[in-house]
Amino acid sequence: MNPSGIVTLTTDFGLDDWYVGAMKGVVLSIHPRAVIIDLSHGVPPGDAFAAALALRCSYRFFPRGTVHVVVVDPGVGGEREILCAESAGHLFIAPDNGILPLALGEAVLAGMRAVRNRAFRLPEVSRTFHGRDILAPAAAHVARGVPWRRLGPPFRGAVLPAEPSPRRTARGTVRARVIHVDRFGNLITDIPDGSPLLPPPGDAVFAVGGRRIRGISGCYSDAAPGALIALRGSSGYIEIAVRGGDAARELRAARGTPVILKKAL
Amino acid sequence: MNPSGIVTLTTDFGLDDWYVGAMKGVVLSIHPRAVIIDLSHGVPPGDAFAAALALRCSYRFFPRGTVHVVVVDPGVGGEREILCAESAGHLFIAPDNGILPLALGEAVLAGMRAVRNRAFRLPEVSRTFHGRDILAPAAAHVARGVPWRRLGPPFRGAVLPAEPSPRRTARGTVRARVIHVDRFGNLITDIPDGSPLLPPPGDAVFAVGGRRIRGISGCYSDAAPGALIALRGSSGYIEIAVRGGDAARELRAARGTPVILKKAL
Amino acid sequence: MNPSGIVTLTTDFGLDDWYVGAMKGVVLSIHPRAVIIDLSHGVPPGDAFAAALALRCSYRFFPRGTVHVVVVDPGVGGEREILCAESAGHLFIAPDNGILPLALGEAVLAGMRAVRNRAFRLPEVSRTFHGRDILAPAAAHVARGVPWRRLGPPFRGAVLPAEPSPRRTARGTVRARVIHVDRFGNLITDIPDGSPLLPPPGDAVFAVGGRRIRGISGCYSDAAPGALIALRGSSGYIEIAVRGGDAARELRAARGTPVILKKAL
Repeated sequence: MNPSGIVTLTTDFGLDDWYVGAMKGVVLSIHPRAVIIDLSHGVPPGDAFAAALALRCSYRFFPRGTVHVVVVDPGVGGEREILCAESAGHLFIAPDNGILPLALGEAVLAGMRAVRNRAFRLPEVSRTFHGRDILAPAAAHVARGVPWRRLGPPFRGAVLPAEPSPRRTARGTVRARVIHVDRFGNLITDIPDGSPLLPPPGDAVFAVGGRRIRGISGCYSDAAPGALIALRGSSGYIEIAVRGGDAARELRAARGTPVILKKAL
Repeated sequence: MNPSGIVTLTTDFGLDDWYVGAMKGVVLSIHPRAVIIDLSHGVPPGDAFAAALALRCSYRFFPRGTVHVVVVDPGVGGEREILCAESAGHLFIAPDNGILPLALGEAVLAGMRAVRNRAFRLPEVSRTFHGRDILAPAAAHVARGVPWRRLGPPFRGAVLPAEPSPRRTARGTVRARVIHVDRFGNLITDIPDGSPLLPPPGDAVFAVGGRRIRGISGCYSDAAPGALIALRGSSGYIEIAVRGGDAARELRAARGTPVILKKAL
Repeated sequence: MNPSGIVTLTTDFGLDDWYVGAMKGVVLSIHPRAVIIDLSHGVPPGDAFAAALALRCSYRFFPRGTVHVVVVDPGVGGEREILCAESAGHLFIAPDNGILPLALGEAVLAGMRAVRNRAFRLPEVSRTFHGRDILAPAAAHVARGVPWRRLGPPFRGAVLPAEPSPRRTARGTVRARVIHVDRFGNLITDIPDGSPLLPPPGDAVFAVGGRRIRGISGCYSDAAPGALIALRGSSGYIEIAVRGGDAARELRAARGTPVILKKAL
């Protein structure tokens, strides 16, 4: 991997505390020319799946050679490993709690390494903030040119969570769910755009929050103001939206809310 | 325009989702040395006026040659154009929903171009996220040196919203309103500092939320703690504030709240 | 001080308004290659102590030669000075309201200067936004190479607030308090890790919010899920936490909540 010099950060730290700032200071102390970009610090505390989704939906828009750091780490200070892996020309560093296979797919498991090399961490490592003391320094060293495989030895047996995915039921419907609600109240479902579970766009019928939606729109402005629609979202999944409105509020939906997909008769 | 290499972003995306991060990745993929600065991502969803105000009050503090991107775009994917224009040595890119004339004045309408050149967008353009797929790449190309007029052909007929502005009433008072409430609860009115509608500072009387304010202060600390004051704000408008307090809460005021200005007898 | 070119910002501005963006524009207008890092903009309005704590806990993670700007400035426009001081190879610029001695200790008082040199501010200085018009330009000039002592003359008599600190009571217990609640609901106390007030880790007993905690843990994952623990926090203070939970909510604790420390019998 040829480093781009860019380091992205995804955490559950929020922006009110100084934790993100401290991580950036560490990166710049090691690699003063690093370009540090926030992906999101609004991941719900401890929510590995949400962090993985943020990463999955955005890392490809960065140059190859970018180092993506994820710090959602409820097991900090315990025995969990910190892992790194390359995928599609990008490097990823995250705790071993499922983030990387959730974000990148199971193929990433084969080439993982454990970030154990003490040469690439802060001289003093706390037991409660490995983001600052281990992950940030490792990322900075790689962004600066250290070959990432020097971060530590190959690692097998990474945590691999079961990911909820849409399933066809006995009655021929597809049972999906909301995996993210964005700031606009758009409901991102777990149905990938292009999924073989999807009937032809005009024939799809979605049931969510007691309401039915017929067909798949191309964009918000295809619909009348206030209309409830399903559409191909920008993140690669089918989304449920209200044009000019907030679908989550209107449908009282949240992450986990079931979405039933049928084919129109 | 000689590019400064700086790209500012103003959106209604918030910071919890990965949308802003994805836009930054796109900019850096095209122009790895771009400097990307967030103006605000807290614009209320779909609120073109609020985005325009943020831009109007801050763009001049950036170096000439900066590219300012605004993505508040409820019409995304429909037939609205994406526009660009130069003003005061800065370049602006935003959807055609009134943001640019609101931020920069009507003079900007004469030199607008429609951002249609497919050479300066992502290879695949979604129908729901033009900020990432069209505006961010266009900005990156210009920041990197592409002459901005190459983004597309001249465009006439941009949307020009009526902007609320203070008016003199039949009874000789001036009817103004609150156009922004900031984090401190300061009420920014639509009365420009220096407006001919303003009487001499000592003679101005403001009525807002059932309270009266006599005179215009120079700064917060001119007043006693807890006092309600009017002052010349840093953004170029008359502001209503409570020293050490929150005027919006105390006056139960919000954007749109009327502010009546009279001359003391 | 040899400048690193990095400028950090700590303010009570929040991120929804354009105030932080305008400050960054000013910095880049003066020093286009400056690297600007947000420490926190979530300081509660006017809260000098919270700003000082953010700075105290993070500045050392930046390279020497970094310029740290703090704008928590309820006295803006009045007679308070803006101060700068060097400490541990870093430069700090903040209003004279106690932030610098609170963040850096009283030793910093001896070498302070008042930022009065008009050559290093904006040509027009408002009376309500010195962050943009005085502090940001001063920081940019220093980050670019201006010797910081040129910002203004030596200054004695800076504001020195009494800082709450843990005290031993007549009954032999130590009366401490919560000085910060972070996003996770962890309670940061004013008991420094390593304080002579601390009994041996196994003998310490903390009483807070009607609950008792025995011993000091090394990290969150030493405890059972849901357990209430005291631990050595990453910021250098004893913290009270709930593993996988929110101690502030569970104990109904907030900043200022008393924490009583005893030695187990």
